[in-house]
Amino acid sequence: MMFCFLNGRIIPQHEATLQISDLALLRGFGIFDYLQQKNGIPIFIEDYFNRFYHSASLMGLEIPMDREALAQDVFALIAKNQMPHSGLRFILTGGYSPDSFTPTKPNFFILEQPLQIPDNQLFEKGIKLMTHHHTREVSEVKSINYMVPILLQERWKAENAYDVLYVDDVFVTESSRSNFFIVSKDDILITADRNALKGITRKKVIDLAMEIMGVEIRDVKKSEIYEAKETFITSSTKGVLPVVLIDEHVVGDGKVGEWSKQLIQKFNNLQEDYIESRSKKTRRQ
Amino acid sequence: MMFCFLNGRIIPQHEATLQISDLALLRGFGIFDYLQQKNGIPIFIEDYFNRFYHSASLMGLEIPMDREALAQDVFALIAKNQMPHSGLRFILTGGYSPDSFTPTKPNFFILEQPLQIPDNQLFEKGIKLMTHHHTREVSEVKSINYMVPILLQERWKAENAYDVLYVDDVFVTESSRSNFFIVSKDDILITADRNALKGITRKKVIDLAMEIMGVEIRDVKKSEIYEAKETFITSSTKGVLPVVLIDEHVVGDGKVGEWSKQLIQKFNNLQEDYIESRSKKTRRQ
Repeated sequence: MMFCFLNGRIIPQHEATLQISDLALLRGFGIFDYLQQKNGIPIFIEDYFNRFYHSASLMGLEIPMDREALAQDVFALIAKNQMPHSGLRFILTGGYSPDSFTPTKPNFFILEQPLQIPDNQLFEKGIKLMTHHHTREVSEVKSINYMVPILLQERWKAENAYDVLYVDDVFVTESSRSNFFIVSKDDILITADRNALKGITRKKVIDLAMEIMGVEIRDVKKSEIYEAKETFITSSTKGVLPVVLIDEHVVGDGKVGEWSKQLIQKFNNLQEDYIESRSKKTRRQ
Repeated sequence: MMFCFLNGRIIPQHEATLQISDLALLRGFGIFDYLQQKNGIPIFIEDYFNRFYHSASLMGLEIPMDREALAQDVFALIAKNQMPHSGLRFILTGGYSPDSFTPTKPNFFILEQPLQIPDNQLFEKGIKLMTHHHTREVSEVKSINYMVPILLQERWKAENAYDVLYVDDVFVTESSRSNFFIVSKDDILITADRNALKGITRKKVIDLAMEIMGVEIRDVKKSEIYEAKETFITSSTKGVLPVVLIDEHVVGDGKVGEWSKQLIQKFNNLQEDYIESRSKKTRRQ
């Protein structure tokens, strides 16, 4: 039996319910965040907490505990479920609204779930993305609103794409649940800033890349895709996942590039180092 | 005690809950609709059902009963609560998703709630709207996604506005929960078609207006606001509500115009006639 955290208590997941007056149900109003835990270590938890508290603040919602108390709840949930490797989904809603429109005291839950990690061969062969004209409504907030990609899901599968890539008239911003990077012909790593979610994996990859290559964080023109040597997406479940096909355009020579391979390795090492260092710390305590 | 309808059963509202794996909670994925009932008569129920089933179809969600069975459930709920005048909120969600992303068998509930009708004096003096650069994501669907207006609510209240008016670079489309109309200098009633929800009150007002004036349903330029004689919004709770101030621009002479007054009266009459005719039908049965 899986357990979850709901409004201060750890309870069986199938018993966890919210009343139907919650503003996430009535108005899609809520935020979320998502991170991995491995062997009891929630990876980069400090960064995810920073973003989660920031999203809450932008939405005018109060997380009902401080970071230290929340971390204790996370560790208690992980200890209860005893999964060696999983995803933790944090959801904070607008609460039980008296007028079905105005946010009130939030409801807060954490679901621990099996990880959905891409097959190994996708990292070796690369994936296809399907472009779509779209910009998320409040792009700085990691909100629960995923109506557009859920509606597009069947279409991108029909095109043998792995996910969607959001573009507007001029620029390319992000994928539905990942950030998007290109490596230019002169070996500069480039990713969008405006209208792209500030991914934690994005940030780690930027930091790692700065040790080995030039990095630019700025608006990225769609035309730059067609001149790029390599492209990839990043997220907490995908790490660095190479993209070799965008609609019908073959990126570079159509194979996973050397920069991508290096960054996959470097990011995996960073995760392992983080887990190792936290495990030691936990053992010492 | 208020009752609601949830997945086939009429139960006390405070006992009505959904599991936290519902896709409306995790991904904001769901649709809704909203209509008034007065003295047991759900007003224009056929039109609202048409839209609700259409939204569900566009979202790939199946409403778990046909219109006749749904109407029976609506009448049973009204009979149980015995409210003389109320609002009925229909919500259909993406269901308990196994992967937190793919829609499955929907959850469906109906909440009966006290009506929030504008004060009488607002119909006599008119209201202010605050413009905001925004277009709803999937404008043909009445989805549960109201993140943008909920976030804007405090700002429009600070500006003494009643609601927001969505514009883009060139056009004006709709308000957050209402359609928007202008009466041009040459007495043509104009309302947006693209990127505006197909409101039931909008449709009724268009039909009524066609008996007395010219009507155009087409893209409406922002510049037309500033030349308009009258403007108003329409919705199921507001009927026809005159707008006399848009940001700092005074519409026409700043008073509620004659066309608006006529359409307020005509729409109220249409509602009363509908209720009257259905009451007779019900009594005959």
